[in-house]
Amino acid sequence: MQIDTKKVRNFCEKLFSAYGFSADESITITDVLLRADLYGIESHGIHRLVRYHDEITSGQVAVKAKPQIVHETAISAAMEANKAMGQLVGVEAMKLAIQKAKTSGCGMVTVRNSNHYGIAAYYTELAAAEDLIGVSMTNTEAICVPTFGSQAMTGTNALALAMPAEPIIFSYDASTTVVPRGKLEVYKKNGQPLPDLWALDENGKPCTDASIVIENIINKAGGGIAPLGGIGTLHGGHKGYGLSVIVDLFSAVISGGLTSNYVNRQTDHTGICHYFMAIDYGIFGNKTDIKANMSKFLQEIRESKKAEGHNRIYTHGELEAELKLQRENASIPVSEKTYEEIRNIADKLKVEFTL
Amino acid sequence: MQIDTKKVRNFCEKLFSAYGFSADESITITDVLLRADLYGIESHGIHRLVRYHDEITSGQVAVKAKPQIVHETAISAAMEANKAMGQLVGVEAMKLAIQKAKTSGCGMVTVRNSNHYGIAAYYTELAAAEDLIGVSMTNTEAICVPTFGSQAMTGTNALALAMPAEPIIFSYDASTTVVPRGKLEVYKKNGQPLPDLWALDENGKPCTDASIVIENIINKAGGGIAPLGGIGTLHGGHKGYGLSVIVDLFSAVISGGLTSNYVNRQTDHTGICHYFMAIDYGIFGNKTDIKANMSKFLQEIRESKKAEGHNRIYTHGELEAELKLQRENASIPVSEKTYEEIRNIADKLKVEFTL
Repeated sequence: MQIDTKKVRNFCEKLFSAYGFSADESITITDVLLRADLYGIESHGIHRLVRYHDEITSGQVAVKAKPQIVHETAISAAMEANKAMGQLVGVEAMKLAIQKAKTSGCGMVTVRNSNHYGIAAYYTELAAAEDLIGVSMTNTEAICVPTFGSQAMTGTNALALAMPAEPIIFSYDASTTVVPRGKLEVYKKNGQPLPDLWALDENGKPCTDASIVIENIINKAGGGIAPLGGIGTLHGGHKGYGLSVIVDLFSAVISGGLTSNYVNRQTDHTGICHYFMAIDYGIFGNKTDIKANMSKFLQEIRESKKAEGHNRIYTHGELEAELKLQRENASIPVSEKTYEEIRNIADKLKVEFTL
Repeated sequence: MQIDTKKVRNFCEKLFSAYGFSADESITITDVLLRADLYGIESHGIHRLVRYHDEITSGQVAVKAKPQIVHETAISAAMEANKAMGQLVGVEAMKLAIQKAKTSGCGMVTVRNSNHYGIAAYYTELAAAEDLIGVSMTNTEAICVPTFGSQAMTGTNALALAMPAEPIIFSYDASTTVVPRGKLEVYKKNGQPLPDLWALDENGKPCTDASIVIENIINKAGGGIAPLGGIGTLHGGHKGYGLSVIVDLFSAVISGGLTSNYVNRQTDHTGICHYFMAIDYGIFGNKTDIKANMSKFLQEIRESKKAEGHNRIYTHGELEAELKLQRENASIPVSEKTYEEIRNIADKLKVEFTL
């Protein structure tokens, strides 16, 4: 079903206020969540409200917590998030990185003990909106099996980068696994076998049965998803595995937080870690020229020769920006399952269900 | 055949001196080249001498050129390499990034108009040797076809990162394509069909005939290699494509140099661009603790459960460090073809052939 975007926004803001977040905080959390739905990344939008509800009510997310800076220089900070809501932590940390980039050319903020923060592109685009390069990474619960392994050691571990360009920003945001977990769930629902390269059973053997893989993930029984590049080394799986380690390095290792293999192993905190970076690209030369270089390169890629059967080459963030334009003053798609889940949450919180 | 490592080193130093490089410069170039052979990355070692010979004698590499800084801040620089030898440019630029990291916490150097610089890990490990995080990227001649395209627009575009750890450094160095070009050449030589996901013909259709793909690449006739993740989006090819754009962003776009789709399109210069970054990870907290966190995480990965049929999980840089230990006081493998090519070069330069 399609629901009016403004209606969803208003309802979510009321919902988050009911948990005890301030009006401003509720607006921010809702904006991050809804951005995913506007971009067509439903897995990270209001579909996740039920998961946030569980984390808030279980105390993994501390509603009144405030992040603290535990180490700081002109170009860097390490933040202890104190289990605060990931979206609030993310915005605060990226704003700090942006401020440092504006005064010192570059700002890097590593964050420990946070929570799921939604789509990484939300934060990188905050930097891009200030005419900076934005970078963000986040670890997650381990789901990615290292090359030659049978046990998940890193998370989906997203890596995002945004760079201003005309007429459309470059905004890359992707997990370092071959696919995110949500993709397995779609195959399970459709009863389809998984592609050979995607997933491993508890013995580290390729497994095309989505039910088995998901069951094992839930029970932490071994196996999981392959890194970008797939199982083994033939298609470069060791490269995706390395990228996922790099995400843990910048988010968990340098912040002193939990690496993916320890995330979501306790009931009272998730321990998710993030990284944010803003770079004023004027530290390398004339900003107008550099931005024009980027715009030209992206345009050349879009205009390059198409493969047979394709009439368009997208640059990263292009499709999302188009969807947002269509959806922000119209409606977003909501599955019946999500709709019912949200109705239940509203009942529990005694918030009027206005969707 | 196996040739004594010291003998190769001495010979290469003499060879580079014969082109007009100073004794110090010849030592540096040789050290970068030989490091690839020591690490088992033969494609980037003395196998490439014939290509460097052609580039030096054609004037694409300017032996006497000195790189210039064209823009600089406390944490950054943009360098015009003036067609200098890539290895010399790389060492100079990374040393500058290291110096800035030591005084300002972080140093970022973008470089235009350089040449092929060998393995990216050489430079990142210079930073790691100074107890810093090292990052390097380089663009190359376009060989990578964007998702839904049929024309190569980005290069193999390597991305490397090194971080100190005990007992073994983390050193990631990989192209953002599914495989480098050298892999296609191995399949061609063996008469094997390529895996389905690797390469595209001039119409952007998957092509498993290595001869056709290589012929097209040489003639710039279209097609090429798929990004990491392979052809299409099923296995995340759009992710590798985005990573390759990011490499061009940091190397070519912010330096004002040539993006991959313009590299090696002129006879008098290659136009290759690089990026170097060094981060003093002490800007985030206690260095001893952070390094210990990294060592622990890597150890946990290595010790995690193996897949059936495998008895070891490698962390990045581990295998290379082991090979180097074996080879540096012993010998390196040299193919007969490379041996003959080098003998020819020695003849042309009237350098005594002592291998």
